[in-house]
Amino acid sequence: MDDLVAQLSAGLPAEAILTDPDVTASYAHDMASFCAAGTPAVVVLPRTVEQVQHVMRTATALRVPVVPQGARTGLSGAANASDGCVVLSLVRMDRILEVSPVDRIAVVEPGVVNAVLSRAVGEHGLYYPPDPSSWETCTIGGNIGTASGGLCCVKYGVTAEYVLGLDVVLADGRLLSTGRRTAKGVAGYDLTRLFVGSEGSLGVVVRAVLALRPRPPRQLVLAAEFASSTAACEAVCAIMEGGHTPALLELMDRTTVRAVNELARMGLPHTTEALLLCAFDTPDPAADLAAVGALCTAAGATQVVPADDAAESELLLQARRLSLTALEAVKGTTMIDDVCVPRSRLDEMIRGTAAIAEKYALTIGVVSHAGDGNTHPTVCFDAADPEESRRARESFDEIMALGLELGGTITGEHGVGVLKKDWLARELGPVGLELQRGVKAVFDPLGILNPGKLF
Amino acid sequence: MDDLVAQLSAGLPAEAILTDPDVTASYAHDMASFCAAGTPAVVVLPRTVEQVQHVMRTATALRVPVVPQGARTGLSGAANASDGCVVLSLVRMDRILEVSPVDRIAVVEPGVVNAVLSRAVGEHGLYYPPDPSSWETCTIGGNIGTASGGLCCVKYGVTAEYVLGLDVVLADGRLLSTGRRTAKGVAGYDLTRLFVGSEGSLGVVVRAVLALRPRPPRQLVLAAEFASSTAACEAVCAIMEGGHTPALLELMDRTTVRAVNELARMGLPHTTEALLLCAFDTPDPAADLAAVGALCTAAGATQVVPADDAAESELLLQARRLSLTALEAVKGTTMIDDVCVPRSRLDEMIRGTAAIAEKYALTIGVVSHAGDGNTHPTVCFDAADPEESRRARESFDEIMALGLELGGTITGEHGVGVLKKDWLARELGPVGLELQRGVKAVFDPLGILNPGKLF
Repeated sequence: MDDLVAQLSAGLPAEAILTDPDVTASYAHDMASFCAAGTPAVVVLPRTVEQVQHVMRTATALRVPVVPQGARTGLSGAANASDGCVVLSLVRMDRILEVSPVDRIAVVEPGVVNAVLSRAVGEHGLYYPPDPSSWETCTIGGNIGTASGGLCCVKYGVTAEYVLGLDVVLADGRLLSTGRRTAKGVAGYDLTRLFVGSEGSLGVVVRAVLALRPRPPRQLVLAAEFASSTAACEAVCAIMEGGHTPALLELMDRTTVRAVNELARMGLPHTTEALLLCAFDTPDPAADLAAVGALCTAAGATQVVPADDAAESELLLQARRLSLTALEAVKGTTMIDDVCVPRSRLDEMIRGTAAIAEKYALTIGVVSHAGDGNTHPTVCFDAADPEESRRARESFDEIMALGLELGGTITGEHGVGVLKKDWLARELGPVGLELQRGVKAVFDPLGILNPGKLF
Repeated sequence: MDDLVAQLSAGLPAEAILTDPDVTASYAHDMASFCAAGTPAVVVLPRTVEQVQHVMRTATALRVPVVPQGARTGLSGAANASDGCVVLSLVRMDRILEVSPVDRIAVVEPGVVNAVLSRAVGEHGLYYPPDPSSWETCTIGGNIGTASGGLCCVKYGVTAEYVLGLDVVLADGRLLSTGRRTAKGVAGYDLTRLFVGSEGSLGVVVRAVLALRPRPPRQLVLAAEFASSTAACEAVCAIMEGGHTPALLELMDRTTVRAVNELARMGLPHTTEALLLCAFDTPDPAADLAAVGALCTAAGATQVVPADDAAESELLLQARRLSLTALEAVKGTTMIDDVCVPRSRLDEMIRGTAAIAEKYALTIGVVSHAGDGNTHPTVCFDAADPEESRRARESFDEIMALGLELGGTITGEHGVGVLKKDWLARELGPVGLELQRGVKAVFDPLGILNPGKLF
């Protein structure tokens, strides 16, 4: 440990090394509930690529595990410390190095906050779509590590689709440049994409070339209430089958609507079984909303409310944004699941989750990126009650089993971390798992990069 | 050899095994000029996954190289036979297994022809965008192997962005399922993407889940003539910087325009130095074309001709489609390069290529997917003239060097194959190359899958 700090100090300024246990303990875990976290030996906060290389060379020389971290807003424990590890926080590498409106790219360091980037490119008339709900605090490096999604994925896709090239410090401290800054490129295997979603287990991203889009017109939102989630899911399918491309298509179940009402007195009718929110950022959003409204009515919507302007749209989206906070208020603690199914199976997923809630006598609210079939069943429980906590964990697992049964995945956008390790093995199967481990060994033969995560 | 055929026969019907040297020789190479091709020992044409598994198990047992093939329309020799290899042609596995308008996916076998899929999904109001110019004959498996692009990439992206999940027969015959049939998913490393563009060197794709889009409105095309390629490139930058999203944005240089005129008497003015084609498939394409037309005029266009309808648009695109045939007619043989640069450097790329043509006293026509910065400098030469052939090859290499110098890549969409092996090493550098080889060894430890390609 003394040796570790001494060697780190040889290539890092004193202010970049934290050893006070009270301070380092605050870097021990991300936002996931119930994920084991160890005690870091030291936290380092480099500002340059060379400093990151020095950290990795030191870690390799001493065989010390390294846990790369962004803003620790993750929901699967992927950034949790291991005992005796170096926590490598990238938050001080937060420069936007370049924004090019002609090439529609931004070049950034990993610690740039998502919202900071969004606003900076907005000033050039550009748009960086990925918008995880933590976007005001989460970092681009963390977004790349977890391949994060957000509300706008149904139209604009996830983080992976915006990462063109990366500079990565490897486990042994060497620097790898992969990918490109061009619109297209197929020179060799796509290692860039391999790093996206690898949760810091293959290398440390120190620079990223990101694709941007032209800024779309402001979106207009419609809310539709349904007397059953089945009817709401029917509307979702009709909208997508009808060839519409909404900028968001979100579904809140009865439990979530009631929790939001309870928290914020938003006056959503207590009789609502499912609330669908749909937005368009097209040249004529009102026309698109009218078409979608008609499909909702045909599917049995009890009320369809299109917003007249941006302010009304914002109000409608507030209910959605408050969902997780509102569900947290129900019992004090939540476990947020992240199962994604083909959207044609969304109704079965939501009804199945309701049955699981009943079986385990738990409150489980379901918020969905419905257009993507990506559900966030949120188990509400009292963490001080061990028996209820056990039921919460069991229901959480049963929800993942249901997702796999319906042809889905255990994680649409939150990642595996430590939370879903056992389930990753179930989803991938033995052949897939063996190959994933083989790839890991190519990049990190000593196994020092974020050990114990993923598999 | 007898042993090989006997063992293959144990799991394949007689009609699936070709051994007549006159017949097997016709499977020896793809469409690339000047790429070494060996003599296959046998060609197999399986119809089922189990048959492919049998082929790979046999090849592993006997340590025989296997070269997977689609329609052999590739342009880099990636499908060229090695001496004594098994050519594994997937063209008979050509079933479309599923098209789902709600989930917006198609599930296909690798031998499905691109145009057949496009038409089949079109009947459901859906759209499979990737459109390489060989789309009437090339297969989806080949498109996946080479990560192919096309005209519509500037708006819709390349093949990689449409591959959600794959079934792959590994080198040892085991079956791997990777990816998903959901809109999103981040369960483990993205092995699916690793296979896209891997040129058959990591495994044999036997089934693909492809993402589809709603069919867009018919596109309307505009043609703009410029007195210099610099002015045309200025227009390209202004269009992209202006936030427009054309469905195609193509640039033909003077050499190409003249060659097309020579071939087809299309009446394009002989004074044209650069012809820009721009299309929109938006709800109001005429308005978008008017805006783009104004930008072209501002950049110095000598003439701007927007099409009034689909028929006129089709006519304008014909000139573009005839380009490669027309350039081939110049000297009998062409080498088609595929350098992609940031679009802000497109002008330098085109001017630099003209200087290279002059230096080597060669005709080099440049057709570009200008919106992507992806150029196809096409070297015209007489293959019977060894001295001219040598100059052709040297100019080809110098064009790639220029592309790298301008921050580009040696291949935007055609791949590496055998044609650009040396150049891949230059682009990736030693660290990148070492990791690529490491990944290859995980999937194909015996090195029997398409050996000698890529690196």
